[in-house]
Amino acid sequence: MPLTAEQQAEIDQQRATPRQTLRAVSEGMEAHLYVPHPVLDHGLVRVVDYMGDDAAICQAARVSYGTGTKSVQNDEGLIRYLMRHWHSTPFEMCEVKFHVKLPVFVARQWIRHRTANVNEYSARYSILDREFYLPAPDQLAAQSAQNNQGRGEVLAGDEAQRVLDLLREDAMRSYDHYEAMLSQDGQQGLARELARMNLPANIYTQWYWKVDLHNLLHFLRLRADAHAQYEIRAYADLMCDITRDWVPAAFNAFRDYRMDAVSLSAQGAAALKRRLAGEAITQETSGMGAREWREFQAVWG
Amino acid sequence: MPLTAEQQAEIDQQRATPRQTLRAVSEGMEAHLYVPHPVLDHGLVRVVDYMGDDAAICQAARVSYGTGTKSVQNDEGLIRYLMRHWHSTPFEMCEVKFHVKLPVFVARQWIRHRTANVNEYSARYSILDREFYLPAPDQLAAQSAQNNQGRGEVLAGDEAQRVLDLLREDAMRSYDHYEAMLSQDGQQGLARELARMNLPANIYTQWYWKVDLHNLLHFLRLRADAHAQYEIRAYADLMCDITRDWVPAAFNAFRDYRMDAVSLSAQGAAALKRRLAGEAITQETSGMGAREWREFQAVWG
Amino acid sequence: MPLTAEQQAEIDQQRATPRQTLRAVSEGMEAHLYVPHPVLDHGLVRVVDYMGDDAAICQAARVSYGTGTKSVQNDEGLIRYLMRHWHSTPFEMCEVKFHVKLPVFVARQWIRHRTANVNEYSARYSILDREFYLPAPDQLAAQSAQNNQGRGEVLAGDEAQRVLDLLREDAMRSYDHYEAMLSQDGQQGLARELARMNLPANIYTQWYWKVDLHNLLHFLRLRADAHAQYEIRAYADLMCDITRDWVPAAFNAFRDYRMDAVSLSAQGAAALKRRLAGEAITQETSGMGAREWREFQAVWG
Amino acid sequence: MPLTAEQQAEIDQQRATPRQTLRAVSEGMEAHLYVPHPVLDHGLVRVVDYMGDDAAICQAARVSYGTGTKSVQNDEGLIRYLMRHWHSTPFEMCEVKFHVKLPVFVARQWIRHRTANVNEYSARYSILDREFYLPAPDQLAAQSAQNNQGRGEVLAGDEAQRVLDLLREDAMRSYDHYEAMLSQDGQQGLARELARMNLPANIYTQWYWKVDLHNLLHFLRLRADAHAQYEIRAYADLMCDITRDWVPAAFNAFRDYRMDAVSLSAQGAAALKRRLAGEAITQETSGMGAREWREFQAVWG
Repeated sequence: MPLTAEQQAEIDQQRATPRQTLRAVSEGMEAHLYVPHPVLDHGLVRVVDYMGDDAAICQAARVSYGTGTKSVQNDEGLIRYLMRHWHSTPFEMCEVKFHVKLPVFVARQWIRHRTANVNEYSARYSILDREFYLPAPDQLAAQSAQNNQGRGEVLAGDEAQRVLDLLREDAMRSYDHYEAMLSQDGQQGLARELARMNLPANIYTQWYWKVDLHNLLHFLRLRADAHAQYEIRAYADLMCDITRDWVPAAFNAFRDYRMDAVSLSAQGAAALKRRLAGEAITQETSGMGAREWREFQAVWG
Repeated sequence: MPLTAEQQAEIDQQRATPRQTLRAVSEGMEAHLYVPHPVLDHGLVRVVDYMGDDAAICQAARVSYGTGTKSVQNDEGLIRYLMRHWHSTPFEMCEVKFHVKLPVFVARQWIRHRTANVNEYSARYSILDREFYLPAPDQLAAQSAQNNQGRGEVLAGDEAQRVLDLLREDAMRSYDHYEAMLSQDGQQGLARELARMNLPANIYTQWYWKVDLHNLLHFLRLRADAHAQYEIRAYADLMCDITRDWVPAAFNAFRDYRMDAVSLSAQGAAALKRRLAGEAITQETSGMGAREWREFQAVWG
Repeated sequence: MPLTAEQQAEIDQQRATPRQTLRAVSEGMEAHLYVPHPVLDHGLVRVVDYMGDDAAICQAARVSYGTGTKSVQNDEGLIRYLMRHWHSTPFEMCEVKFHVKLPVFVARQWIRHRTANVNEYSARYSILDREFYLPAPDQLAAQSAQNNQGRGEVLAGDEAQRVLDLLREDAMRSYDHYEAMLSQDGQQGLARELARMNLPANIYTQWYWKVDLHNLLHFLRLRADAHAQYEIRAYADLMCDITRDWVPAAFNAFRDYRMDAVSLSAQGAAALKRRLAGEAITQETSGMGAREWREFQAVWG
Repeated sequence: MPLTAEQQAEIDQQRATPRQTLRAVSEGMEAHLYVPHPVLDHGLVRVVDYMGDDAAICQAARVSYGTGTKSVQNDEGLIRYLMRHWHSTPFEMCEVKFHVKLPVFVARQWIRHRTANVNEYSARYSILDREFYLPAPDQLAAQSAQNNQGRGEVLAGDEAQRVLDLLREDAMRSYDHYEAMLSQDGQQGLARELARMNLPANIYTQWYWKVDLHNLLHFLRLRADAHAQYEIRAYADLMCDITRDWVPAAFNAFRDYRMDAVSLSAQGAAALKRRLAGEAITQETSGMGAREWREFQAVWG
C-alpha cells in the first residue's frame, strides 16, 4: 500500500491543521483521522470523518438538551442496558466515514450491507491501478472438506507455488491487455467502461463508505466472525480496533452482548436447563437435528 | 418555547467549550450548534452535530486522499454538475443531527421519511409536558373548496374565536385528565403508556433526527413546498436556512435544480416546443387532461 | 369493528372470484385473504396480498430455475439452517400486504419499523370516523413500580371506572368539537388538516402495510414480546398466527431460533459453563452488573 | 443463454400447473412468468413472482376495503395524478421478483440500487459456469472524446478483432486456470472462495432480485437512460417492456412524467419564459454555465 508522495502530502496537510469546533470530539478517533492503516497486501482503511462519541449515544437516548448523563460511569451503564435490550436507535446517532482500498471480490461481499452510503472509484470514468491481491502463503488454503463455503488446510509445496504463479501471471497479463486495449497509440482505444471487464476480481478498488454505529456493529458482527472469508475479516478486525478507540463503552457492550454472546435455540435452552438439573442429554432427547446438535456440542461439550 | 434555566445552562456550557479537531469544519454551521431556533408557538430546531461540508462532497465524488478540488470555484462547479445529473451518492456523505420539538401531528407526517435515524422522547417512560400547538390567527384557515387536502381563506370573526377556544379548552382539559389519571395520590395511578392516549395531536413531542444531506434535501423539497401543510413547512423553511449556512454550494445547486426547477411531462415539453415555434396550443391539441392542463397553464400561461 | 354493508360486500366479492395463476400459492394464506380479523375493540388485520411460500425461500437461497428443493422435508431443513445462521436474504424473498385498523398511539410505535411500505388514511384529505380505543377492564393497568416503561396490577374499583369515564368522555367531546369545527353549516368550516389536531391518540386510523418476511419476523420478535405494550402485542400475536399459516416451516424456525431463543452475554455463557462444571456462581463472581444478574437469574435460576 | 434440458423441464413444469388464487392477477404478467428472456450473449431475465396490478395501486392510495376505483378509466386518472405529484407510496404496494443472469461488471452497477432484496449465486459455495460476455461487433466502442464516462464510435477493422481476441482468450485462460486451481486431481485443490478471484468481470453471475414498483421505476429511469452503460441498459429496456405488460397505466404515467419528462432548472425555466415572450437568450444572459447551456440547447435549440 505505498502511497504516492502527493497522497502522503495531502494526508499530512490534513493532519497538520487542527481547527476549533463545538461538536463532540473523540480523542481516540482524532488519532486515527486520515491515517492509512494497511490491510492485506495493498489495501487500506482510513477514517475520513466521524460524528459523536459514547456520550452522544446517551444524549440521544434521553433526547436531552445537554450532553449525556452526569458521569462516564452512568453513561456506560446506560449503554450496556441499551445494547442488552436491543434498543438500537441511540447507536444510530453516531456516524463514521471510511476510505477503504480493497479487492473487488471483497467489495462484492461488503456492498451487500445496504444500510450505508458508498462512493466508489469509477472504472467507467478513470483507469484502475495495477494492484492485485495475492494471498500470503499462510492464507493459500484448500477447499474445506466439511464446509462447502469454507477453507481447509494450507496448500503445501508445489501446489501453493503453482497457484501463486497462476494468480500473478493472469493478473499481470490481464492488466497488460487492459492497457493495450485502452491505448490510443496508433488506434482508437477501447472505451474504459468496456476494457475494465477484462480485469480479474483480485484487482483493488477504492471507496468512501459511511455508516452509522448500529449498522457498523452489525457489519462487524457478521464480518469479524470466524465464518466470514478471511480477506473481509482482515478489514473487519481492523475496524473493530478503530471502533474501540472511538466509542469504548459501546464497543465493549457490543463485544459482550453480541460478538462473544451465545444464542441458544428454544431446544438448546431447554437442553441446558435439563443438564443443569443433572440430566444427561443426547441428540435424540434434545429435539435438535444432527447438524444443530454438533453445533451445540461444539460450544457446550 | 421557554427553556428551563437548567436547559439553557446546558446549552451555554456546550457552546462555551470549543475543542480542537482535525475534521472538516463548517464555520456557518458552528454558529448554529446547540442554539434553539423557535418554530411555531412552542417548537424548536437545534443542530446537535454535523459531519462534512461542501468540500467533503467533492472529496467523496473523487474518492480522494485529501480534501476536495483545488479551489472553491471548482468545488462549486462539480457540485452543480452532480446535482444536475442526479449523482446523489456524494451528497449522502454529509450528515446532520437535529433536536426538534414539534406537535405530534407534524411528527406523524415527518416520520414518513424513512431514510433517517430517530430517537423520540418516550411517553411510555416519561410524562409529557403541558405544551400544545394553537394556530396563530393568520393560520386559522378554512377548508379549501378546490383542493381536498388544502387550506382556503383565513377564518373570520367569531368562528376563529370559537375554534381557538375549543382547541385550547380541549387541550387543557385532556391534560388535566392525563394528570388526574397518572396521579398516585390516593389511588394506584394509570400506566403512563395508557394515560397518554388521552392527549390530542397538537401536544408537543421531541426527537433527535439524524439524516444525510441527500435525504435532507429530498425532505426539504417535499416539505418546504407550497403543497405541504403550513406547520411542517415552518420547520422545513428554517432548516433550509440552516442548510444554506452549512453547505452553501450544495444548497444553491439544490435550489436551482430541484426546489425552483420545473418538471415538464412529455406532453408539456412537446407543447412548449410547439409554442416556441409559434403554434397556439389548447388543451385539446396538447394531449393533456383537464387538470394537468390547468397546472401547466398556471406555470406557462 | 363493525364493517358497513358496503365494505362487507366488497370483501365478499373479492373472496367470491378465484382466478388462475402460475405463481406460488400458499393454501394457508388463501384462507385468510381479505377476511377481517378483529383486534382490540375496533381494530382489524386483513391480508390483502402475499408473495411466495416456504418453497420460495429455498428457491431463492439456491437461485434455482424451478421451485425449491426436491421435498418438503429438505425445504424445512434448509430453512432451519438459514434461520440458525442468520442468512436473512432468502426470507426477504416473500412479501405480504396487510390492511390494518389501529389506534394512533399504536401506529406511532409501529411506524418506527422503517423497512416497510405504508399508505395511511389521510386526515388532511378525509374525515376520520368516530372510533376510539377504550381498554378492556383487564387491561386497565397501573404504572409498574419496578419498570419505568411497563404496567403493574390492574386498576381496582372506582379508579378503573373513573379512568374509563374520562377516556370515553374526552374522546366523545373531542370528536364532537372536531365535527363542530369542520361544519360548513352557517360558517366557513375549519380545514381538515387543522381540525384533526384536536383528536386524541386513541382514535383509530387505518393503513396498508407491506413488508418482506424477514422484516415482518423482526417486527414480530420485538412486538409479540412480553416487553412490548399490550396493545401492539395484540396485533403482533394475531399476525404470528397468520404467518404460521402462510409459511409454516419458516415460522417454526423463527419460533425456535428467535422468539423462544435465549441470548447469553459473554459473561452469561461463561457463568453457565462454570455452573455445568459444578461451580456455584454469585453476582460478584459472574462479572455481571446487578440488573443483568437479576435478568440472568430470572431465566436460569 | 442455452438452458439445460433439466432447467427447461423445471420451467415447463412451473408453467404447466396453474392454480387458483383469490389475489389480484395481472394477465399481462402471467404470460411472462418463468419464461427466460435473453439479454446480451448469455444473459436472461425471468419473472419469478409478482404482487399487485394497476388496481392495487389505487386500492392502496384509497386504503380501501375492496379493489381500486369503480372503473379502469378512473384508476388511470388517479395513477397519473399520483405520479405527477410524486405520491410514491401507492406504487410501493406492487412488488416483483426477477431471476437475472448478468455479467459481474453489470451486477456491480446494479447492486448500487439498495432498496431491493437480492440473493446471488455464491462463488464461495459453488463453481461458476464458463460463460463470459463478449460484446457484439456494433457494441465494441471507442472511448468518447467528449464524455469521460461514455462511448464514442465503434472500433474499426483490425482493432476490433484484436480486442475481441484478447477478451476471449483472457477469459478462457482465466477459466482454465480457475479449474486447474480447484482441481482435486493429484492435489488438494484451492478453496473456491479464493480461486474465484482469478475470474474477470465479464463472467456471468445470477441472482434473484426483488423490488417494489416505485423503486423499480426509479431503477429504470436511471438505467434505461441514454447515459447508462449499454450493457445494463439492455436489461433495463427489457424490464420496461415487462413492466408495461404488468401495470400498463402506471408504466405509461411513468413514461410521460419521468422517462420522457424534461427538468428545467430555475435558470432554464426563466430562459424559456423569456423566449416565449419573444426575447433572444444567450448563455451570457441566461445565467447558466457553459456546460449547462450546451445541455439546454441540446433540448431547446
